Amino acid sequence: MSRTAAIIGGGVIGGGWLARFLLNGWDVKLYDPDPDAARKIAAVLSNARHALPMLYESRLPAEGRLDICDTLAEAVAGADWVQESAPERLDLKHRILSDITTHAASGAIIGSSTSGFTPSDLQSGVDWPERIIVAHPFNPVYLLPLVELVGSKDNAADVIEQASAILVSLGMFPLQVRGEIDAHIADRLLEAVWREALWLVHDGVATTQEIDDAIRYGFGLRWAQMGLFETYRIAGGEAGMKHFIEQFGPALKWPWTKLTDVPELTDDLVATIASQSDAQSGRLTINELERLRDHNLVAMMRALKGQDSAAGRILNRHQKQIAAPTAFTPGNPVETVSRVIPIDWTDYNGHMNESRYGQVFSDAADAVMVMIGADETYVASGQSFFTVETKTAFLDETIAGDPIRVETVVMEAAGKKLRLRHRMLDANGGALASCDQLLIHVSLKTRRSSPPAPQVEARMRELAAGHADLARQAE
Amino acid sequence: MSRTAAIIGGGVIGGGWLARFLLNGWDVKLYDPDPDAARKIAAVLSNARHALPMLYESRLPAEGRLDICDTLAEAVAGADWVQESAPERLDLKHRILSDITTHAASGAIIGSSTSGFTPSDLQSGVDWPERIIVAHPFNPVYLLPLVELVGSKDNAADVIEQASAILVSLGMFPLQVRGEIDAHIADRLLEAVWREALWLVHDGVATTQEIDDAIRYGFGLRWAQMGLFETYRIAGGEAGMKHFIEQFGPALKWPWTKLTDVPELTDDLVATIASQSDAQSGRLTINELERLRDHNLVAMMRALKGQDSAAGRILNRHQKQIAAPTAFTPGNPVETVSRVIPIDWTDYNGHMNESRYGQVFSDAADAVMVMIGADETYVASGQSFFTVETKTAFLDETIAGDPIRVETVVMEAAGKKLRLRHRMLDANGGALASCDQLLIHVSLKTRRSSPPAPQVEARMRELAAGHADLARQAE
Repeated sequence: MSRTAAIIGGGVIGGGWLARFLLNGWDVKLYDPDPDAARKIAAVLSNARHALPMLYESRLPAEGRLDICDTLAEAVAGADWVQESAPERLDLKHRILSDITTHAASGAIIGSSTSGFTPSDLQSGVDWPERIIVAHPFNPVYLLPLVELVGSKDNAADVIEQASAILVSLGMFPLQVRGEIDAHIADRLLEAVWREALWLVHDGVATTQEIDDAIRYGFGLRWAQMGLFETYRIAGGEAGMKHFIEQFGPALKWPWTKLTDVPELTDDLVATIASQSDAQSGRLTINELERLRDHNLVAMMRALKGQDSAAGRILNRHQKQIAAPTAFTPGNPVETVSRVIPIDWTDYNGHMNESRYGQVFSDAADAVMVMIGADETYVASGQSFFTVETKTAFLDETIAGDPIRVETVVMEAAGKKLRLRHRMLDANGGALASCDQLLIHVSLKTRRSSPPAPQVEARMRELAAGHADLARQAE
Repeated sequence: MSRTAAIIGGGVIGGGWLARFLLNGWDVKLYDPDPDAARKIAAVLSNARHALPMLYESRLPAEGRLDICDTLAEAVAGADWVQESAPERLDLKHRILSDITTHAASGAIIGSSTSGFTPSDLQSGVDWPERIIVAHPFNPVYLLPLVELVGSKDNAADVIEQASAILVSLGMFPLQVRGEIDAHIADRLLEAVWREALWLVHDGVATTQEIDDAIRYGFGLRWAQMGLFETYRIAGGEAGMKHFIEQFGPALKWPWTKLTDVPELTDDLVATIASQSDAQSGRLTINELERLRDHNLVAMMRALKGQDSAAGRILNRHQKQIAAPTAFTPGNPVETVSRVIPIDWTDYNGHMNESRYGQVFSDAADAVMVMIGADETYVASGQSFFTVETKTAFLDETIAGDPIRVETVVMEAAGKKLRLRHRMLDANGGALASCDQLLIHVSLKTRRSSPPAPQVEARMRELAAGHADLARQAE
């Protein structure tokens, strides 16, 4: 295999496919009659080059070569995978697919990004249908793993398997859809929500913002990690999925939505759902599923907190409301951190990773910064402290959920120099780690060392004086 | 306000409310006639005590006091907030709400967790309707921020505002639903998906697992951070939301789903959606929205990677496929890390946080571990290396998206002791940081130092010999 892909149509979806192949080391040949295609592709590629490599702890393969071709024939010649992402009009897709089959190599996989048409729709009237399949991705294609892969009875026997292996090698999740239906699986669910949402706006019940908030602060978070059925399995509790369906089934008949044509909940259908759910999730107890869900939610919500976005923004606001200010009493170490170890700070053993000890000490230094007036406003004014050196001793292990605190002593505060000693303690006062930290005051304009503002320097001296005895004992 | 809540009904939802109040410092009084209530509450509380504090970088307030009461009257007496979470039967809810209004303080907020009934439904026939509102949360209530807050014309004017302020103080997001409709907003969307999903299973198109995968590897990830409309606004591109609706609107009429009663896309409805979308997201350009979406997705997918769950599991598998093995050439430093800086490693300035330098050096040590045969299998056999001391010099800044690499020299390898020196370099070979790291071989059974296995020690010696000259120069 030459690992060459032809991308026919370079819009948001075609461009996403192009980036996915190119950044995974494939050569890509693009054909798009739009005179603006090169500019559009450059925009998608710029986003993809920024985001996709960030998902990995190692480098992606060297980027492939990108050729923008003048003709479809030139683009598809010799390609192992041809992906059609033309507008959603069947006559247009038929014309393009006929062109592709005329010029493509006989072993090529010909994927269509169609969200609505079935493989049989696409294959009908095309000379050479065996290699044409639906490969329906989700925007942004360079980040989201899902691809719905659908074949028909007219496909060569191995084409879906071959396509699946290639998609896995691109980091994607091929979902082999076993039956041909319009809109496959995901878009049927999306359509249902979309129609209901349009009614809510139409009836003046909710605005677009309110509907989006109802999604992203609630079930959207659940669905990013478990789908509908596994989530409801948990809601059903130890009584199981059968019980859940039987209990909540009647609500389906209530006229809650505009769209009330529902399948009859026969014993057969209930049994089918319950046994499929057992096959899917039965290896875990409800309590294990709850833990899995909660760990995923905590990790994702903390990730959003880092971006100060969506649910993470709510958390940051709440944290500001509840955080107690750091108090200074001369002669006593300052408690600069008091918290529990979150699940995203631990390694596969459940122990806090070495680097997160550094996170804790970095947070401890931040608390000192606030205490001496080098706070957000000060940083915004163009001044800050940078850590130039740390020496850390790791004394004991700690695990997810454990409470920890840090006691900090100001060892030295002179001019631009601030030296701190932190001790991390467990709930019983046992030492977990210690850290000597040297910080230097800098101008954020020149990125060089500079004297602190007078009021900050005065406060530094005040703290150092209050800690003079402690510092002498600690040296 | 005494900050006391009464929880009437202690199932999964009532228990979640109880945990939310208690862990935010409120006293809670529970009434549930179920003889098994105490056990059920303990299970929910155990989950909540584990997960909720992990969301914060500081400690939550001291837990309130929990009383399990023998009567409803005792539970609601003096409570500021009474939350009813009884089964979804209107006659039962009426009886309980009447009891509550008889015994509650006159200023209490009386919330119902109903997912289906409107406030008017609940208030009808109850003596004292002014304080009864719908406060509909989402499971797990102790983690998910969303609460749908709905009042009726019979409510006291300020009750929704009061309730809203309290929910914010509990870290929740109160969505004030302006109109009373059955099932409020979120559950109407959920019902639509649920019905469509039941059809897919009923028709044998997809299993529960396939439907869940179609959700969590695709649009579920999008919806955890932006909802439906903001996501589609991006898909519409610079042409805007009006263009998107006009373009994709016709597909609504296609018989893709079983449920095809859709609102007429009149010019008025299109204009309403477009202007609501402008109000919601118009402060950001499409490219800014794309960046925001991609950063959120990268951060969440990396969070799931840390849990080796859902989309994160796909990423971990792909990473194993593409990662190049670490190569050792005597006389040359080993390249132990080669990657880009991801968005979740940077602070609000876009610069890599100090602690993530430690992460990089910890990963560098892991690469050495694999190279000397102290790999996953070795760790699983009960032996490992622990870092006991690090000394880090921070030399220059680096930002999200920048490629970095680490060169490592084995300074000393003798018995249980392994000493490494790492240098972190930017794309031009400029030094970003250096780290001296002392590791000690340990038995994971005794958690004490121990001699490495002979084959590991032999490989350590081999590397140290190959780096002897480099180490001499570096000392």
